[in-house]
Amino acid sequence: MSTDASNTPFPLFITPMDVRWQDMDAYNHVNNANYLVYLQEARLKWLQTLPGKWYSEEGAPVMAHSEINYRLPIEWPADIQIELFVNRLGTSSMTVGHRIVDSDDATKIHADGSVTMVWINTKTGRPVALPQAIRDAVAEAQDA
Amino acid sequence: MSTDASNTPFPLFITPMDVRWQDMDAYNHVNNANYLVYLQEARLKWLQTLPGKWYSEEGAPVMAHSEINYRLPIEWPADIQIELFVNRLGTSSMTVGHRIVDSDDATKIHADGSVTMVWINTKTGRPVALPQAIRDAVAEAQDA
Amino acid sequence: MSTDASNTPFPLFITPMDVRWQDMDAYNHVNNANYLVYLQEARLKWLQTLPGKWYSEEGAPVMAHSEINYRLPIEWPADIQIELFVNRLGTSSMTVGHRIVDSDDATKIHADGSVTMVWINTKTGRPVALPQAIRDAVAEAQDA
Amino acid sequence: MSTDASNTPFPLFITPMDVRWQDMDAYNHVNNANYLVYLQEARLKWLQTLPGKWYSEEGAPVMAHSEINYRLPIEWPADIQIELFVNRLGTSSMTVGHRIVDSDDATKIHADGSVTMVWINTKTGRPVALPQAIRDAVAEAQDA
Repeated sequence: MSTDASNTPFPLFITPMDVRWQDMDAYNHVNNANYLVYLQEARLKWLQTLPGKWYSEEGAPVMAHSEINYRLPIEWPADIQIELFVNRLGTSSMTVGHRIVDSDDATKIHADGSVTMVWINTKTGRPVALPQAIRDAVAEAQDA
Repeated sequence: MSTDASNTPFPLFITPMDVRWQDMDAYNHVNNANYLVYLQEARLKWLQTLPGKWYSEEGAPVMAHSEINYRLPIEWPADIQIELFVNRLGTSSMTVGHRIVDSDDATKIHADGSVTMVWINTKTGRPVALPQAIRDAVAEAQDA
Repeated sequence: MSTDASNTPFPLFITPMDVRWQDMDAYNHVNNANYLVYLQEARLKWLQTLPGKWYSEEGAPVMAHSEINYRLPIEWPADIQIELFVNRLGTSSMTVGHRIVDSDDATKIHADGSVTMVWINTKTGRPVALPQAIRDAVAEAQDA
Repeated sequence: MSTDASNTPFPLFITPMDVRWQDMDAYNHVNNANYLVYLQEARLKWLQTLPGKWYSEEGAPVMAHSEINYRLPIEWPADIQIELFVNRLGTSSMTVGHRIVDSDDATKIHADGSVTMVWINTKTGRPVALPQAIRDAVAEAQDA
């Protein structure tokens, strides 16, 4: 991974997401808070694909920042997928860009934005270096 | 309300929020998505205090943007309150700043950020002018 | 469908269910309330397969009763599926039996129980006759 | 507590419940699954009032059964409260009866039913004797 890698977003992972009827609110659209649930589940699906360990008591990810642009409402039923990007890789943090798009037409964007996670020591609460498993997976995605 | 009102944040509303055990995730902290639920409930509590009509088929608020800085985890049980601010008032939009703070010590900030809502005609999907009830309430808050 | 059909449970529908990390609570198991969400989503997936109309203002299903035996905790990640049965068909009501089982081993039962729905006129609140689409689908399932 | 205590329901605890807009589903009523959330939060509020320890690795409550009769929909906003009863006390289990009623008129019953919890050793999964804190609190409630 080149040294300027952290500044150019590149694709990391794509996964379909099952939209539940329960995800809708009284407006008959998927509630705004559930977008964060979708992003979380997509990140976890990505993390589960890693061969190495991305989580331990000495280094666990916590949310530092989230940002969402709501562009098109998500109705039910819907076929959507979540696209994850690497926006920035820091010493202890990772900013994952995201888009929620129509499965049949990825130009139909329901939402985009980013989520920043910081890896911390769960006992001290202090930031720690990103796990090697994360760095390896990101480097592999960048080279793909 | 003066013409530059929209650029200087000022307090709008404060409400306590009941933290449910259910709001926690497997990390034993309130899940990041539920912060948006808390903000939504706080906004609705504010909107319910308005004497005038803030919602109709001709003008209903939809989410355009949300942004959260996660600063301190929220555990259970917890005594928290939500502070809302007016960050910006546009022709059809309103950006509400927010802080989630400890009820006993408002300097203990669990999260801050903002949410932008746009009022639209629910039939056409087009932005409409902010309801007068919103403008009046914001002007009153600013003068307070 | 024979006249005593309503008293002998028979299989209606099976669907896999995507278990979200979000579905877990602070005990690291899927929260008890989310079992009802899974059942709801399974029922809706079944209802969506019906060729006829099962829902209108003159006849919409509302929950009358739910009953769950929690037998084995559901962890994450998990491969589960929901099995639906027809336990009883009344004039305006339908009791759907259910089981949540392991996808690889349906004898590993996480939960079972039943849910009773009553079709009502949404304006009057009064029970109405089950839609023909429901009766047809149930008859077809029974004959299968 | 008399020996036949376990068979006669008696009041245990009453608590108001904050109904969130988020609790509603696309039908504009509180979703059926959230009734279990309300009951869970009410039980926890009761458990938090106990002077003694009701939870440890050697004895933690897990859900064994839930049963709900849905009688009147819950809309938003709503003022409701949860009433808990002791329906039955076993060696390792406790069956809590419940009612969700209107705060201003407890004869307006939105739902009733019961939840059975079993205390287990979290390592072995085996049932253990109910904690003394539970038995004491129940005895006190019965004598009140």
